[in-house]
Amino acid sequence: MITLYHCAAARSFRPLWTLEELGLPYELKMLPFPPRVKAKEYLGLNPLGTIPFLIDGDTRMTESAAIAQYLVTRYGPTPLAVAVDEPDFGSFLNWLHFGEATLTFPQTLVLRYTQLEPEERRNPQVATDYSKWFFGRLRGLEAAVTKSETVCAGRFTAADISVGYALLLARDIGLSENFTPGVAAYWQRLQARDGFRRAVAAEDLAGVQQKVPRRS
Amino acid sequence: MITLYHCAAARSFRPLWTLEELGLPYELKMLPFPPRVKAKEYLGLNPLGTIPFLIDGDTRMTESAAIAQYLVTRYGPTPLAVAVDEPDFGSFLNWLHFGEATLTFPQTLVLRYTQLEPEERRNPQVATDYSKWFFGRLRGLEAAVTKSETVCAGRFTAADISVGYALLLARDIGLSENFTPGVAAYWQRLQARDGFRRAVAAEDLAGVQQKVPRRS
Repeated sequence: MITLYHCAAARSFRPLWTLEELGLPYELKMLPFPPRVKAKEYLGLNPLGTIPFLIDGDTRMTESAAIAQYLVTRYGPTPLAVAVDEPDFGSFLNWLHFGEATLTFPQTLVLRYTQLEPEERRNPQVATDYSKWFFGRLRGLEAAVTKSETVCAGRFTAADISVGYALLLARDIGLSENFTPGVAAYWQRLQARDGFRRAVAAEDLAGVQQKVPRRS
Repeated sequence: MITLYHCAAARSFRPLWTLEELGLPYELKMLPFPPRVKAKEYLGLNPLGTIPFLIDGDTRMTESAAIAQYLVTRYGPTPLAVAVDEPDFGSFLNWLHFGEATLTFPQTLVLRYTQLEPEERRNPQVATDYSKWFFGRLRGLEAAVTKSETVCAGRFTAADISVGYALLLARDIGLSENFTPGVAAYWQRLQARDGFRRAVAAEDLAGVQQKVPRRS
């Protein structure tokens, strides 16, 4: 049985969404955010205190986009993976990384220095720098999803899950109002997927059961 | 023929190192840093202006850790890749992402707000925040490379190239003095590899030929 440690609306939504798209059985463990402060016993499992944390037999993983690739490759064959002999294999890997390293990390700066830090440590300059950075990089996505329904391979894959979480985070921190038309339409398409909806429902249900307040 | 666009000591060192480890033929195109300012014609090829940029037939890639995985998978079989049926497949993917998203991105904040920005926009608080962040995450690497010579699978793989570039960047921005003993020894092992040395030599030679000043 796969076990996923998750905080509502955190990067761990990527593996949760992937599990729902694949229809795999899993156990979802909800943690309060940030777990390294509010659930110190979690450090015994994952000393970094980061989210997600996935356990699958002897495999332990902490990187959300890597977990998405792992699940669709290990539990395939599935159209959610792009195989090495397909023309878009390189593009698939590129979008998997782009979703996290290029589209998500800059937003965590915006979140940190506008909301998470105490008032005296907030920093509008850095938030503005990385908001611009995010929108600069998002132009690459606009070009891709205007030409096609998804980022690569002419179908929905784990790469869309990686990029899709970056758009979910943008919504949660107030950046999605400035999405360009192609990105906005792509984000609507992603949210309309059954797998996305099941992941949101699974998170809400687990959150209610464990009385963890959902972040707005 | 594979073409790689590279700036000295930039993330594109990952694909360069991978190409040298594999012994593949490639053309190396050196650019001044940052290319989006100093080589504007490059935007015609890669509108994001980011480095690296890899061309391989119809494949175009911009994410350095993704390119490392692409090359070792597409041009395998090679021990530099960990196959899906090996026990460390998940760990391999995790370290590939960890090297960039978790260990490299925070350092770019340190570099930006201590060196790249003009004096009045520098920000010691953010540089300190992300220096701490980097060393916090580096504890995960210390644990891994104390138990083993490499990060996974009991052999050198593309995952070590992903993590190794993060250590090279740490050296270049002055953070490597604070490496813990296991990480320092691992970094020495990586630099002693023939593939690493050939990549450094290729970069130096191309830099001299194209009269691009090497960053210190």
